[in-house]
Amino acid sequence: MSKTKNDYASANYGKKITGKRRPAKKTPAKAVKIAFLGGLNEIGKNLTVFEFEDDMIILDCGLAFPDTDMLGVDLVIPDFSYLEKNVDKIRGIIVTHGHEDHIGGLPYLLKTINVPVYSSKLTIGLIKGKLKEHKLLELVTLNEIAARDVITLGKFSVEAIHVNHSIPDALAFAIKTPAGVVVHTGDFKIDTMPIDGDVIDLARFAELGKQGVICLMADSTNAERPGYTESESTVGETFESLFRKAEGKRLIVASFASNIHRVQQIINVAAKLGRKVALSGRSLENVVAISTELGYLSVPDGVLISIDEVKNKADDKLVIITTGSQGEPMSALTRMSTSEHRKVQIGANDFIIISATPIPGNEKTVGKVVNELMKLGAEVVYDRMYDVHVSGHAKQEELKLLMGLVKPKYFVPVHGEQKHLRFHAALAESLGVPHDNIVIADNGHVLSVSRNEIAVSGTAPCGRVFVDGYGVGDVGSVVLRDRKRLSEDGIIIISVAVDTYTGDVVTAPEIVSKGFVYVKESEELFTMAKDTVYDVLDKFADNSFSDMQAVKSRIREEIARLMYERTKRSPIIVPIIMSVNL
Amino acid sequence: MSKTKNDYASANYGKKITGKRRPAKKTPAKAVKIAFLGGLNEIGKNLTVFEFEDDMIILDCGLAFPDTDMLGVDLVIPDFSYLEKNVDKIRGIIVTHGHEDHIGGLPYLLKTINVPVYSSKLTIGLIKGKLKEHKLLELVTLNEIAARDVITLGKFSVEAIHVNHSIPDALAFAIKTPAGVVVHTGDFKIDTMPIDGDVIDLARFAELGKQGVICLMADSTNAERPGYTESESTVGETFESLFRKAEGKRLIVASFASNIHRVQQIINVAAKLGRKVALSGRSLENVVAISTELGYLSVPDGVLISIDEVKNKADDKLVIITTGSQGEPMSALTRMSTSEHRKVQIGANDFIIISATPIPGNEKTVGKVVNELMKLGAEVVYDRMYDVHVSGHAKQEELKLLMGLVKPKYFVPVHGEQKHLRFHAALAESLGVPHDNIVIADNGHVLSVSRNEIAVSGTAPCGRVFVDGYGVGDVGSVVLRDRKRLSEDGIIIISVAVDTYTGDVVTAPEIVSKGFVYVKESEELFTMAKDTVYDVLDKFADNSFSDMQAVKSRIREEIARLMYERTKRSPIIVPIIMSVNL
Repeated sequence: MSKTKNDYASANYGKKITGKRRPAKKTPAKAVKIAFLGGLNEIGKNLTVFEFEDDMIILDCGLAFPDTDMLGVDLVIPDFSYLEKNVDKIRGIIVTHGHEDHIGGLPYLLKTINVPVYSSKLTIGLIKGKLKEHKLLELVTLNEIAARDVITLGKFSVEAIHVNHSIPDALAFAIKTPAGVVVHTGDFKIDTMPIDGDVIDLARFAELGKQGVICLMADSTNAERPGYTESESTVGETFESLFRKAEGKRLIVASFASNIHRVQQIINVAAKLGRKVALSGRSLENVVAISTELGYLSVPDGVLISIDEVKNKADDKLVIITTGSQGEPMSALTRMSTSEHRKVQIGANDFIIISATPIPGNEKTVGKVVNELMKLGAEVVYDRMYDVHVSGHAKQEELKLLMGLVKPKYFVPVHGEQKHLRFHAALAESLGVPHDNIVIADNGHVLSVSRNEIAVSGTAPCGRVFVDGYGVGDVGSVVLRDRKRLSEDGIIIISVAVDTYTGDVVTAPEIVSKGFVYVKESEELFTMAKDTVYDVLDKFADNSFSDMQAVKSRIREEIARLMYERTKRSPIIVPIIMSVNL
Repeated sequence: MSKTKNDYASANYGKKITGKRRPAKKTPAKAVKIAFLGGLNEIGKNLTVFEFEDDMIILDCGLAFPDTDMLGVDLVIPDFSYLEKNVDKIRGIIVTHGHEDHIGGLPYLLKTINVPVYSSKLTIGLIKGKLKEHKLLELVTLNEIAARDVITLGKFSVEAIHVNHSIPDALAFAIKTPAGVVVHTGDFKIDTMPIDGDVIDLARFAELGKQGVICLMADSTNAERPGYTESESTVGETFESLFRKAEGKRLIVASFASNIHRVQQIINVAAKLGRKVALSGRSLENVVAISTELGYLSVPDGVLISIDEVKNKADDKLVIITTGSQGEPMSALTRMSTSEHRKVQIGANDFIIISATPIPGNEKTVGKVVNELMKLGAEVVYDRMYDVHVSGHAKQEELKLLMGLVKPKYFVPVHGEQKHLRFHAALAESLGVPHDNIVIADNGHVLSVSRNEIAVSGTAPCGRVFVDGYGVGDVGSVVLRDRKRLSEDGIIIISVAVDTYTGDVVTAPEIVSKGFVYVKESEELFTMAKDTVYDVLDKFADNSFSDMQAVKSRIREEIARLMYERTKRSPIIVPIIMSVNL
């Protein structure tokens, strides 16, 4: 008998059913399907769908920030059409943690598909804030779950597992299906000295591993990096020594708003050294309010002051926590660096700590902010000058440790670009997971996972949907292509009125350009353009401009050629010919 | 007597003239002026002017690559108006080395100011190539000088000093002026094992230091970084071990085209292991041709093959050297990664080495190329996975060593952003240069340096001039502002013809948008816009549109408001109203 893939699967299944617990059956192994609508070959807009027969659950629904070529786009969300098509099957959304790349797409999804959402207390708190902004709060059912809780969603039984990350209350999920258990780590690190004292629940991962896990899906963000990610608590030690070094100076610390443990540590050291703490940046104020209310942040009485009070406080009695650690153009720190912040003027008595490393792509903007702050005389700690930042993601040794505990039959690296997924796959192979049991999937893939087999078994639509202002999906490739061309070479608008009865040109051609050249110094060029338009019109006047499209095309071509010859640029040319009949 | 700054200067001068060699004089110390037209608070468009009485010399004339906010701009050159104004004083241009940020502005300068250029053989060779492209070669006098040559330019006597850098034949200059000797390092590192065997001329720096240097201007690029920059030759060792590791595979190595010693090392290892070498990328082919002709690159007979022959060679007998180490969109490596390279198709048997680190700002594009190459199955060595790249710039220990040899009275850090200049200044201070003897200058500053004093004594115009296509300076802030807005929100053009006698609207308003929304799905919005235009026209019809500017303004306002309300976007609105009289 030829040993085809199916034979192999059946053979395996046959072996399994000779065991004690179950009677022999001749049906093929049951399979859970896993569809990726985002989060692979990118860091952002994570959205994974688990399907078993007529039940579906969604894990995370994030957004991505636009690439530089997505001009004018505010954010990017997954294509939800696969979910809309299967709306009757969806039993709920489980969410790992409260970062934008995991919850930022939720308001857009919940507008079309109203299903219950399950996550930890803090994550639900952050989701509430989002839904309130989108006026959806009253419409959606939000359910708080705790680590080790098990919820039933159709044929799925989902257990939440506590993990460490750069935001508190992060969860992994063990998804129990009739095909076996799938473990999804969410974003995680192994922090043996976390600020809240709550170490990742390695014991539970170990138990699951012992009971048998068919598939592990794990965070690949730091899979390129050898070693261990340091504990968040190491940053607090650095803060204390730097704060002491900055004696007499005002301290300003920039951090990710959602890194509540980082904020906690800044507050702790400030309180210890008798400094008050003020916050600058809307997202930071929001997160601090929510996490204080929910008990994730503990601020000693009297330590927090309003940013308005900063001007009345002595420099050496102050710490300002601010957003803008990535050099974001409108952020508080950037505004400070350009002297546009209304409450904080930077000077030689400022000691500024950027408690973050630039996300790839942000190096230059961060560098610019550092340079500008220094020009104002401030001392700036940035990059890797001191240990003022640790990652929230597991490095190679942690990834190996977790994999060793879970001992999955199949492995699917998730949450990463191609290079991260490849490194993670190689890591799994080096730990003994057979090459053929590892799948590097892509957005749009639907995997089928059973006890005997893992394979890409189908596809799902997985495009990027652009959010621009109020518009969701109304900016597509044509608009972006036009924006790109407009941004590089601008636009020339040529307008003229003609009489389609007489063949007369009724008004002189008018030429308007935007983003093309400094018009006042290009008069000659525009005169030539007008002459060109007259020449074209002359040619078409005889038959009274009967084919208006041809006239427009010819004007477009001739003007494009003239402009390219004279400037080597290719602006968009818009001819507007109004036909009037005198 | 009060000890003002002038008193101090005179007092010092008095001391000096009591020495043996000179008779006492009561004139103030002579000063050399140093004007910065580029290269400070930026890495790019280096241009420094040295002035003594009626003589001026220019040191370097580079370009900068546009920042992301300079939409559509091809390159940035310094503002030459200060030079144009002083054209009669300029005795020549001395050039440190052949990188674009030091020679790229030359063709644009030489078009307006024809003065002789002096530099090393290779640098002159590269400048020749540029001038040929700009059809200037016949018009300009180019002079080859060798290290230790001294040339007289007006009252300046300029000595060339050999330094190591990431391009061969790089020079520092000792500029002897009646006010004293100023040393400018150019870009340098201290390579004790350079590929051409020619170690930086530390002895000459030491002699100059012994004789007395009033001012040192030194490369700050790596002033943030502790330690020493490794020797270029270490890269060759890594190449050999990686090439051996890649046995049986095709090798592709991406590098900076101008890094001729890097290219030499790739060729050497390839020849040793019996592989042929092909080149891909126009700039690489140019540089290899020039440097081979001038004797800076030595290729064993038969090793170099054409890129057309690649398809006929076994993978394990090939090395392809390519451009694109920074992920540049049109580069050879990027085209390979997107399967758009006509001669090279990437597959699982390719071993690709990116022999460079991303310049800040390029991290994301390089990452994208790596991801795409990996998707095609290639193995990719990038970033700091192996020692496949070393910097061309001195790190802190080298900077200190050089400063210790030159022992300048005054120190001016150059070639860096604010953070680099600050680190370098702090380094000088830590070596004992008094705080007040160090100047962090800026573009547009004119320094005055004498034996007794260093001070900013004036300013010079130092703007950025944008080159876009054939246009030099015709794109300014207004055009860029329009391009930015066009790129984010697009443009809406509203055209209508009216009769200014009768007050009639002659044609229905026509609305064209580019880069705004996907029009077919926004019909309702455009209908509303037309209604708005009619409403406005109605209001102005009574007085026959007598104030056309007011009509246009109102249309612009009303349409802008409508669009913002409905889309939260702010496209540029161009109303075109043609007045015809029926």
